[in-house]
Amino acid sequence: MTRFDTIITGGRISTASDTFQCDIGIREGRIAALGHDLGIADETIDATGKWVLPGGIDSHVHISQPSGEGVVMADDFESATRSAALGGNTMVLPFCLQESGVPLRESLKDYHAKAEGSCHTDVSFHLIISDPTEQVLGQDLPALVHEGYTSFKVFMTYEGLALSDLELLKVMAVARETRALVMVHAENYDVIRYLTDQLEQAGRTAPFFHATSRPVIAEREATYRAISLAELSEVPLMVVHVSNREAMEEIRRARQKGLRIFGETCPQYLTLTEGDLEGLNMEGAKYVCSPPPRDHESQQACWEGLQQGVFDVFSSDHCPFRYDDPQGKLTPKGRTSFRWVPNGIPGVGARLPILFSEGVVKGRIDINRFVALTATNHARTYGLYPKKGTIAVGADADIAIWDPGAKNRLTHAMLNDGADYTPYEGMELTGWPVLTMLRGQTIMRDGVLTGIRAGAHVARRISDHA
Amino acid sequence: MTRFDTIITGGRISTASDTFQCDIGIREGRIAALGHDLGIADETIDATGKWVLPGGIDSHVHISQPSGEGVVMADDFESATRSAALGGNTMVLPFCLQESGVPLRESLKDYHAKAEGSCHTDVSFHLIISDPTEQVLGQDLPALVHEGYTSFKVFMTYEGLALSDLELLKVMAVARETRALVMVHAENYDVIRYLTDQLEQAGRTAPFFHATSRPVIAEREATYRAISLAELSEVPLMVVHVSNREAMEEIRRARQKGLRIFGETCPQYLTLTEGDLEGLNMEGAKYVCSPPPRDHESQQACWEGLQQGVFDVFSSDHCPFRYDDPQGKLTPKGRTSFRWVPNGIPGVGARLPILFSEGVVKGRIDINRFVALTATNHARTYGLYPKKGTIAVGADADIAIWDPGAKNRLTHAMLNDGADYTPYEGMELTGWPVLTMLRGQTIMRDGVLTGIRAGAHVARRISDHA
Amino acid sequence: MTRFDTIITGGRISTASDTFQCDIGIREGRIAALGHDLGIADETIDATGKWVLPGGIDSHVHISQPSGEGVVMADDFESATRSAALGGNTMVLPFCLQESGVPLRESLKDYHAKAEGSCHTDVSFHLIISDPTEQVLGQDLPALVHEGYTSFKVFMTYEGLALSDLELLKVMAVARETRALVMVHAENYDVIRYLTDQLEQAGRTAPFFHATSRPVIAEREATYRAISLAELSEVPLMVVHVSNREAMEEIRRARQKGLRIFGETCPQYLTLTEGDLEGLNMEGAKYVCSPPPRDHESQQACWEGLQQGVFDVFSSDHCPFRYDDPQGKLTPKGRTSFRWVPNGIPGVGARLPILFSEGVVKGRIDINRFVALTATNHARTYGLYPKKGTIAVGADADIAIWDPGAKNRLTHAMLNDGADYTPYEGMELTGWPVLTMLRGQTIMRDGVLTGIRAGAHVARRISDHA
Amino acid sequence: MTRFDTIITGGRISTASDTFQCDIGIREGRIAALGHDLGIADETIDATGKWVLPGGIDSHVHISQPSGEGVVMADDFESATRSAALGGNTMVLPFCLQESGVPLRESLKDYHAKAEGSCHTDVSFHLIISDPTEQVLGQDLPALVHEGYTSFKVFMTYEGLALSDLELLKVMAVARETRALVMVHAENYDVIRYLTDQLEQAGRTAPFFHATSRPVIAEREATYRAISLAELSEVPLMVVHVSNREAMEEIRRARQKGLRIFGETCPQYLTLTEGDLEGLNMEGAKYVCSPPPRDHESQQACWEGLQQGVFDVFSSDHCPFRYDDPQGKLTPKGRTSFRWVPNGIPGVGARLPILFSEGVVKGRIDINRFVALTATNHARTYGLYPKKGTIAVGADADIAIWDPGAKNRLTHAMLNDGADYTPYEGMELTGWPVLTMLRGQTIMRDGVLTGIRAGAHVARRISDHA
Repeated sequence: MTRFDTIITGGRISTASDTFQCDIGIREGRIAALGHDLGIADETIDATGKWVLPGGIDSHVHISQPSGEGVVMADDFESATRSAALGGNTMVLPFCLQESGVPLRESLKDYHAKAEGSCHTDVSFHLIISDPTEQVLGQDLPALVHEGYTSFKVFMTYEGLALSDLELLKVMAVARETRALVMVHAENYDVIRYLTDQLEQAGRTAPFFHATSRPVIAEREATYRAISLAELSEVPLMVVHVSNREAMEEIRRARQKGLRIFGETCPQYLTLTEGDLEGLNMEGAKYVCSPPPRDHESQQACWEGLQQGVFDVFSSDHCPFRYDDPQGKLTPKGRTSFRWVPNGIPGVGARLPILFSEGVVKGRIDINRFVALTATNHARTYGLYPKKGTIAVGADADIAIWDPGAKNRLTHAMLNDGADYTPYEGMELTGWPVLTMLRGQTIMRDGVLTGIRAGAHVARRISDHA
Repeated sequence: MTRFDTIITGGRISTASDTFQCDIGIREGRIAALGHDLGIADETIDATGKWVLPGGIDSHVHISQPSGEGVVMADDFESATRSAALGGNTMVLPFCLQESGVPLRESLKDYHAKAEGSCHTDVSFHLIISDPTEQVLGQDLPALVHEGYTSFKVFMTYEGLALSDLELLKVMAVARETRALVMVHAENYDVIRYLTDQLEQAGRTAPFFHATSRPVIAEREATYRAISLAELSEVPLMVVHVSNREAMEEIRRARQKGLRIFGETCPQYLTLTEGDLEGLNMEGAKYVCSPPPRDHESQQACWEGLQQGVFDVFSSDHCPFRYDDPQGKLTPKGRTSFRWVPNGIPGVGARLPILFSEGVVKGRIDINRFVALTATNHARTYGLYPKKGTIAVGADADIAIWDPGAKNRLTHAMLNDGADYTPYEGMELTGWPVLTMLRGQTIMRDGVLTGIRAGAHVARRISDHA
Repeated sequence: MTRFDTIITGGRISTASDTFQCDIGIREGRIAALGHDLGIADETIDATGKWVLPGGIDSHVHISQPSGEGVVMADDFESATRSAALGGNTMVLPFCLQESGVPLRESLKDYHAKAEGSCHTDVSFHLIISDPTEQVLGQDLPALVHEGYTSFKVFMTYEGLALSDLELLKVMAVARETRALVMVHAENYDVIRYLTDQLEQAGRTAPFFHATSRPVIAEREATYRAISLAELSEVPLMVVHVSNREAMEEIRRARQKGLRIFGETCPQYLTLTEGDLEGLNMEGAKYVCSPPPRDHESQQACWEGLQQGVFDVFSSDHCPFRYDDPQGKLTPKGRTSFRWVPNGIPGVGARLPILFSEGVVKGRIDINRFVALTATNHARTYGLYPKKGTIAVGADADIAIWDPGAKNRLTHAMLNDGADYTPYEGMELTGWPVLTMLRGQTIMRDGVLTGIRAGAHVARRISDHA
Repeated sequence: MTRFDTIITGGRISTASDTFQCDIGIREGRIAALGHDLGIADETIDATGKWVLPGGIDSHVHISQPSGEGVVMADDFESATRSAALGGNTMVLPFCLQESGVPLRESLKDYHAKAEGSCHTDVSFHLIISDPTEQVLGQDLPALVHEGYTSFKVFMTYEGLALSDLELLKVMAVARETRALVMVHAENYDVIRYLTDQLEQAGRTAPFFHATSRPVIAEREATYRAISLAELSEVPLMVVHVSNREAMEEIRRARQKGLRIFGETCPQYLTLTEGDLEGLNMEGAKYVCSPPPRDHESQQACWEGLQQGVFDVFSSDHCPFRYDDPQGKLTPKGRTSFRWVPNGIPGVGARLPILFSEGVVKGRIDINRFVALTATNHARTYGLYPKKGTIAVGADADIAIWDPGAKNRLTHAMLNDGADYTPYEGMELTGWPVLTMLRGQTIMRDGVLTGIRAGAHVARRISDHA
């Protein structure tokens, strides 16, 4: 009689292309068999009436990252991966930010130190290049790609982060050489600076004007520019957090020309609008992220991008800050002008339930597309496949079991991240993950963490797109 | 110890989204388990170093179909499915042609009678509607869809087949009602008639002028028109055998608007050009099919359609006629003018090796896209999924094992269909199917049929696109 | 001292490209001089503070045309050209309809006979080809083009008028040979028949359903098809009365490919919507024309077409029927179903004031574009230039003097055509023609006809687009 | 008897929309009358068999402009306007370059001083903004616009000239306020710097690599960016010297959205290719200009832009440098690397004959479009209309008389500018200007200047596009 550590029985299993019903035999953290009457196991999990899906991979989260003078991100690795696990994820890809004057490898060590032993899910780091010195370009990046940090993120906006086109070209040249994947935050910095100054001069400093200061044109223009530089450099490019039709269409155009341009969108662009920033007092600050949420037509465009394959991945861009700040760290500045509102919102826990409910349950996407957008494509894009991102013999037993009929009214407590609110508070959702399994170990069951913190760093291969 | 009928070991398995390496346990004609050390089996097939893929489904083949006065199609069900099995297919979808004055169900019975007991692969019939009478629209079609004939084909050209727009709308109305899928041969009949007359009057009757008589505009226009009628009728539509960029772009445009418009292309549009019709004497007649092959840019466009998802399925449009005709049946007419050259070329056996070699081996598409284009999407489009079209527990054990390194110079003998030539004679191909298994039974091994004729008719469900 | 018959002094003169201020000396019906202090004249017309523009040419009007059993068009040549002159026009181009069984030249003679001596403005006939027999194609049309009837109109819809694609190709072949210009009414007849039957079966027969029965798709499809046939035939094509964005964009696409495809729109598509057909009882019948008015977005699209050069000409498609019918000729049928409502609305008199007010005064187009759209482009398109359509030395003195500041509330009485209503009743308009001069003779002054009926037939040259 | 200073008789006159045949009476430098038998005149010019056109306006020429260390432009105002007059022009619009540390008004005074008394044609200055200080933005520009310098040029490339996006936005804000027209040289500076460094490091320094260093992507990207900034700023924009299809299509897209984006192309983009830069030794340097000439498809695209109205103006971008340099000023640097080849080519004299011959004579554009592209649209775009740019009563008598049948093989001697070569040497041209008249005075006759240097500065109005 064949023995397994665990057998999941009776569920409907979906991959990015298939749906089938059978049992899953798990041994030594990996999927060992698919079939019926597989044998005996130490533990049997009954998934009858449930969806059994690859654990979510969230390839765009910010954890414990410095965010400007005195601003502290609301999540450390424990709390962020805790929320991730509660939301059906088995892996997150946070960023290692190159800090001014600090060797890149040094920064990386710090992040590793913070993550070590704290994580409920697996993790792997993208490298944010803020200062492409010769040392970084010529030595550090090639070495780090070799060691499994196979993706770089670059910014076209933000003081201290924005790279010039010349710097972007240099980073892309390294990417071409090393086959690393470049991710880009595409907004035109000068446009934003210009408008921010204009707004401040006009006394328009409420959080709502954050949206005004970062119009669609700023995003669309930078998207087009980044694509042009990538085309010139002959590298694939991932345009992260696309918020609107115009930027989406630029990605589509590039793709139709045969360029390897990829796009990501996030829950905020499907469910929020700039109207949410209009909250009284500073309430609107809860929705301040960049690019800002736009309007309902933009939401429709983002859905089309997800449906029609313009967007390959759906991430959270989790970037949590507390709204209330007892220590008063944020207050003095945060309450002066939108310019000083910490930029980012939490979402690592809410990402999957939102897409499941709004997408799968409402018939906008099918379950296979859900799996592709939330797991498989992340694994393929960022060099984790076939170890991660699917349910197949040999893959890590990273699994989320979903109750498709569960009805919930979303509260921040259900997500339990380090922030003190969720921008999606009160959403009525159908479908919820009832069990999360990381490499064969159940880390969440029925909304409660099991306490196992087995999350580890995963060195990555070259992207499938490179 | 778990028992199976057959175990396939050691192969690399691909589905439309995944690739993994494990054994496949087969029992009672179905895939029962995926894993390692699955148990014991009556037969073990060693697939080490091979690709193990879903058996090909060719959803566009013509078999034993009347083709105008005295013209006999070169294949019956035995010979057509023989070639299909040799070329890695486990299922073909031929047509049942409604003949003038014959009740549709009568015609269907004839086809079934001819197929019964003759088939090496499974079969299922599309219904060609040539005369949408009230009886057909109101009674026959709804009943037949209910019985599993869930797709209709309509023609916009050919004497005796071409439907008017009014008739197309009526057929589409039935499709909307019954959720059948409409397939359309899109060429403008009047344009072709007009040009054919002009060419004949000018004495331009060689086979090459077949291409001249059916220009891209004729196809593009009918494609656009069919899409418009489908949009109006709110039905999905499959535009078959798309040959060029302009028609492809119309499908893309429709799709970007959110319409459920699907496209198919075929080997002839990837590998032949109208130059092939220029053969001396009547040699060019070997390449006469409709739409005609175009030029190299059109081939590139068709590849882009396959790569970028504009085309969902890749079929052969197998429609075989003998070139030499000892009985003299074709000669008198066939040698007078291109107008009388029987229209169609064989391809059911060559389809998969051509796409494997030109597509996968040459890096134009990956192995998952190959599976999607040759099996999974056919199954989903035509209501055969999840029984057919993938490798998953519970699916029929319809499997093709490919030797990715096999080098062959294609000859008609390797394809062994009922025609006396292949238009792809002499192509240098890398990769070849070495075993075809139908519902667990090996029907072809190393290029030789096993003699098992277990092919059966499969009643189909509603299309996934409906 | 130089002598003129008439001098117009002090006006601002506009052509399709220029605006300048000077006097116009007229002699023997033609513009003899432009300048200041030109000399002496029998009559001096003071145009100070006024625009002096080329007289309007309306290249799309129906006069005295049979319109189905027992239906009588509301205008004869006298009343139609009377309204035209009141509205600032100096020439109209009505149609000569080929009637079943009647030799084309015979029909033409009839129209000439009716027009002879009745016309306030000049006229010239387009030929409607409803039955392209060999006689017509091979003999009549070439001869008539030679005699100055250099444009054909074809219909893709209407019982008895609709030509098949094959017939369209044959007419286009004659056009290519003779360099005549083809005008096309582009709506898909089968779609309309199908929907009309559906609507009638559902008891939806009110005038509003006229719009439902002729959706945008029907127009867009036929437009695309006509363009395709023209592309194949290598002839220029004028798509008349375009009503919406989708059809407009097809024309734009064709044009960007370098094809000689031209477009026309009309006042009804700028100012009415299908909502106007919703009138109680049969009131909506007053707005029944084909294509039907669409929605506000379509109006915007038509404006863009006028502004951006997609549309070259702005015509009325004047096709008048009486709403009240004392003789009871229309009543029995007209009140049964939208299918029997005579199709067409009056507009020859209202066309220019509407475009002036809504276009020039509201800043959507400038005065030069107004002149191009209402006069010069008509003359160039239909072989009347440089005799007609501009203000230049040597051109016919066909002139309209406009008071740009006149405010009027439009009434049918101001238009004085043969119908008993105007669909634009009550529009508030700024700008009105205060004098119309035909070949040097004042035919209208201050809203009153002078009684001169000097209108003559003008044989035309080949179109500038051929 | 009416008296004129000059009468031009018998010519065919064309404006941007019309063509007519009559005499032109000129008095006090202006067109006083159009007609026949106008009266008597001091001078009669017989234009029988000739075209009489508005004198060319070249709105993009560089004269006496500093061009980097030690580099001297080959033309002063005398020689540049000399060549312009020989080539049928009556006005040129050179640039006043803001130099580092020099008050803008000071620079302007210098240019005026140099131009004063030297010019064969009229002139008017655009202002190049290289350093948008608060003084310049807040004080100088508004005042200068008020004084008739109603257009600014900005650069997105070149050391010392390139403005950041932030600076572009600030200049555009002034343009919006003052209604000045912004002209932009759109190439991505960082791309060019990056590629130039790469090429130099690879030892690829021949003139040909000038083209390699400035690829289409660099131009297309900057074009898109400039359009985006203009859209944000709600200002019209003129994109100068467009060289290829991709940039052209961006302008077209913008225009179709209703934006006021305008484009210019130049003779080098219709007639040269990057192949011309491949000359042996440094011969290719004769063709070094920016953007570089591209390929034959790009030429076709530029023709389409001219035909279809994407481009409104056709200018020379005259920017002359001597190829041989007796004083050795250029040699040391110029012969080291393409980076130091002075950037620009002469063309003010050749512009009109090239467009006439290649455009009008070869049937690509008609004579009216020629007039629009070479005169009228320049006048409208840059605030010179209706004083300049057309033949109408009241306009300046700026006239060029063309012999449409003259055949010439172009030589530099015929152009007689300050450079020592023409990039168009040896072109076979049909059509040549035989007389140029500036405000009524004949400045060139039969290829010989009359010696009259009556050229004056013209203060300009606000652009018709603002």
